[in-house]
Amino acid sequence: MTREEPPAPVRRGRGRRPAAQVRAEVLDAAGRILLEDGMAAFTMERVAAVSGASKVTLYKWWPSKGALALDGYRHAVEHRLEFDDTGDIEADLRTQVRSFVEVLRGPAGRAVAELIGQAQTDPELAAAFREVYSGPRRALAVDAVTRARERGQIRADVDPETVVDQLWGAGYHRLLIPDQPLTEDFADALIRHLLPGIESRPDERG
Amino acid sequence: MTREEPPAPVRRGRGRRPAAQVRAEVLDAAGRILLEDGMAAFTMERVAAVSGASKVTLYKWWPSKGALALDGYRHAVEHRLEFDDTGDIEADLRTQVRSFVEVLRGPAGRAVAELIGQAQTDPELAAAFREVYSGPRRALAVDAVTRARERGQIRADVDPETVVDQLWGAGYHRLLIPDQPLTEDFADALIRHLLPGIESRPDERG
Repeated sequence: MTREEPPAPVRRGRGRRPAAQVRAEVLDAAGRILLEDGMAAFTMERVAAVSGASKVTLYKWWPSKGALALDGYRHAVEHRLEFDDTGDIEADLRTQVRSFVEVLRGPAGRAVAELIGQAQTDPELAAAFREVYSGPRRALAVDAVTRARERGQIRADVDPETVVDQLWGAGYHRLLIPDQPLTEDFADALIRHLLPGIESRPDERG
Repeated sequence: MTREEPPAPVRRGRGRRPAAQVRAEVLDAAGRILLEDGMAAFTMERVAAVSGASKVTLYKWWPSKGALALDGYRHAVEHRLEFDDTGDIEADLRTQVRSFVEVLRGPAGRAVAELIGQAQTDPELAAAFREVYSGPRRALAVDAVTRARERGQIRADVDPETVVDQLWGAGYHRLLIPDQPLTEDFADALIRHLLPGIESRPDERG
């Protein structure tokens, strides 16, 4: 330890924080900066300054600014987008799609629109988006629909991946090409239109 | 007329072209440049050079590069995206959604993804996108669904705007967040899932 470069925790007088706590504080800071000021204001320097972690630490855990922004976004919205599994797929989908549309309508919607926008010409960010965010979230929804199919609530010929595009994807469409507003009526219409074509008829249920 | 600055048509030895022809040639050039080389290579200079129109002419008709790129895109894809009206809404939607997914899979998909991406941080391009492209195209689809509702083929409680998000919007979702591929099976699953929830039951038809 030299006077020129003391370790960050000592310099800040906060004592050494456990890695899990540092990680959580970095994600908090990243999510807050992204949602409050957008991608233009999002830099590794700023996340380091707000969280009290060093840039070396940030780069050890997140290979790029985009990866950290995405992880911060996921961290900021995941508690609002938890997937219920009450056994009633229609109710669970309605709850989830309403929450999702509500999230898109706020600052998180603006942030994720910028991330998706930038990903169209930034292959590294696009790969990080799929790996850190959209892939895992898609899997949660696909799992829920697949379980409902196994319970006999969803028809055997339904493709769970396509259901994701027709509920959540429809929401992203209104976010990214805002010809029409993201309202609760819209969320409910998504469910009302889709459910009759994917639910089993009573005589098909196990 | 001076030797220093002869009017472009004379210099190019093509004679004066009627405005409608110039316009069509500009749109051809704009569409081709966009689909072949993407937005990074798309400049007013290049469209002027390829089409033989002057930059002054381009700016007279299109206020910005984005507006011209979008109009070129519309011009390039519109003949492949004509909306049939055979009186059978299910068949018409299937034909249209298959063509749309096919267009998205090719170079036009890459081009429109870049335009939508850039529109997320460029409010002028976003406004042009809605005015020149997505608004008019959405209206065509909404009109088709509304006519089918008036014929009694689509249920009275269906929201035609939301149908657009669940068919075309679902396609844009796979284009912009490519977790899953844009295939004909996907197009067919979109129709198969949605139609039972929006079509009138036989006893409801007029």
